[in-house]
Amino acid sequence: MHKVIYDTDPGVDDAMALLFLHRHPEIDLIGITTVFGNASVETTTRNALFLKREWNIPAPVAKGASVTIDPERREGAWPTFVHGENGLGNIKVPETIDLPLDPRPAHRFIIDTVRANPGEVRLVAVGRMTNLAMALKQDPEIAGLVKDVVIMGGNFYVPGNVSPVAEANIHGDPEAADIVLTAPWRVAVIGLDVTAITTMSRSYLADVAARGDSAAKLLNDLSQDYIDFYKHAVEDGMMVHDSCACVYVVAPELFSTILGPVRVVCGGIADGQTIVKPDGRHFPPGNWDGLPSQVVCTGIDSERVINLIRDAVLRA
Amino acid sequence: MHKVIYDTDPGVDDAMALLFLHRHPEIDLIGITTVFGNASVETTTRNALFLKREWNIPAPVAKGASVTIDPERREGAWPTFVHGENGLGNIKVPETIDLPLDPRPAHRFIIDTVRANPGEVRLVAVGRMTNLAMALKQDPEIAGLVKDVVIMGGNFYVPGNVSPVAEANIHGDPEAADIVLTAPWRVAVIGLDVTAITTMSRSYLADVAARGDSAAKLLNDLSQDYIDFYKHAVEDGMMVHDSCACVYVVAPELFSTILGPVRVVCGGIADGQTIVKPDGRHFPPGNWDGLPSQVVCTGIDSERVINLIRDAVLRA
Repeated sequence: MHKVIYDTDPGVDDAMALLFLHRHPEIDLIGITTVFGNASVETTTRNALFLKREWNIPAPVAKGASVTIDPERREGAWPTFVHGENGLGNIKVPETIDLPLDPRPAHRFIIDTVRANPGEVRLVAVGRMTNLAMALKQDPEIAGLVKDVVIMGGNFYVPGNVSPVAEANIHGDPEAADIVLTAPWRVAVIGLDVTAITTMSRSYLADVAARGDSAAKLLNDLSQDYIDFYKHAVEDGMMVHDSCACVYVVAPELFSTILGPVRVVCGGIADGQTIVKPDGRHFPPGNWDGLPSQVVCTGIDSERVINLIRDAVLRA
Repeated sequence: MHKVIYDTDPGVDDAMALLFLHRHPEIDLIGITTVFGNASVETTTRNALFLKREWNIPAPVAKGASVTIDPERREGAWPTFVHGENGLGNIKVPETIDLPLDPRPAHRFIIDTVRANPGEVRLVAVGRMTNLAMALKQDPEIAGLVKDVVIMGGNFYVPGNVSPVAEANIHGDPEAADIVLTAPWRVAVIGLDVTAITTMSRSYLADVAARGDSAAKLLNDLSQDYIDFYKHAVEDGMMVHDSCACVYVVAPELFSTILGPVRVVCGGIADGQTIVKPDGRHFPPGNWDGLPSQVVCTGIDSERVINLIRDAVLRA
């Protein structure tokens, strides 16, 4: 069993990934930590509690960062045109959910849980990397105590989605992402190179909902506006960004990868760009020297990934 | 006839490109301007005069910039391991060449020549973009008076050669390159996406020398150390970076291209990276808005390009 802490900003594709993690038979979801990004952290936390209640998820929810790790950064507007005004595709969600939050802030929850399960925890982060960076800053030793880190974020040999070179999760807190990617732990980076070509069609998801239980139906409902948003890039469906990272946890063999240290550009016109120096390629002395190699995903078996998501969702 | 001013830092691949420009029947080489880069501007200017004398090139030589346009930038060491201690592969070159230089600095030569031939001049720049940027700063109107600009520099969907994301010509003066690429003239950008896959083998070049005159033999001689340098990346041959840009002048149909505004990263870990925003792709408001679209080469018919170079060199 893979012990997973899921760091998330639900978020429509976050919701699908959450149901995958909850239902996959080889995953033990031991915590959900929230972060700002697809909406404010108040909204993403409310959404996490809502999905926990609707889907009977036992994992505790801990509320995380509301702003970037460098408070000097100015926050942009929430991407309501992607995830809806409420972060869940404008379906009806109660203003508050009557479920208790874990009393700790997300980064403290991560530290405590990693220390209680040394060598076992897999951190799956699919929003801004702020909580992970804060956890590392407060307790750098956790880098040697997690099993690994899997993130959805970045882009390497394809364009970005919020600038010609930057992806939203990394662009939303570049300093945090640079801390996470250069720390002495193993990070698998699932970025747009693979997630932007992994799409689930509207009809495929509708079929899952028809065959599935009320959880699958809720997933289908909250995904409709998101699918509408993707009209510009996908025939009639959605990119399943965050689920790709979750599938990597159990099926890394569906991804092709390169190894190399990764840095994040902080500031300037390339703000938030992820840059890998592939191992074995040599350049004059530079900013990638001496850093740990990470796993950068450059290829994916999209069809099998989509089917794995379906199979997990249909396990009631 | 294409009226070409060749801005260059010879440089081994610069020398091949110079012979191509001199001998191609549809090109009228009306000026050679020199710049620092592959060696100091004293050395590249001496080399330009040497090649002018050896190859009987009528075009005048004007000496250009010796440092970056932003004098705050610290200059690195000359790449003697690529182009040799003397910039021409360590063949014997006299310390001085007894030929007159044009009395004007390169940027002034460019301005005067463009103004004397309105709408006709094609600026082919294959070193640092410093001279072109200085010409633009001193006389912005030349942007509307040249026919177009063709540069060797940058990289878009492939790694760089001096950092994971930067190519040497652009990295050597990013501020100058950003001025050149964002000015209201049409620039065709011939970067590593196409030049790094366009190689001439040692035996192919030897065959050209065997069939050619003394000019071809000199070209072969000065290229040997450069071919040795490329052992790490090319089977037994050389990338013909600068010649690719010169071939574009007469045979653009051998290149596939995308259009879009191009910016250069100035400073930080991505220093010198070229970034295109392809036309038709939309992002939130950003640093590419309102800038002229340039022509970015992403594909090349390498075999035909190599043969065109051969054919020109063999025209004595």
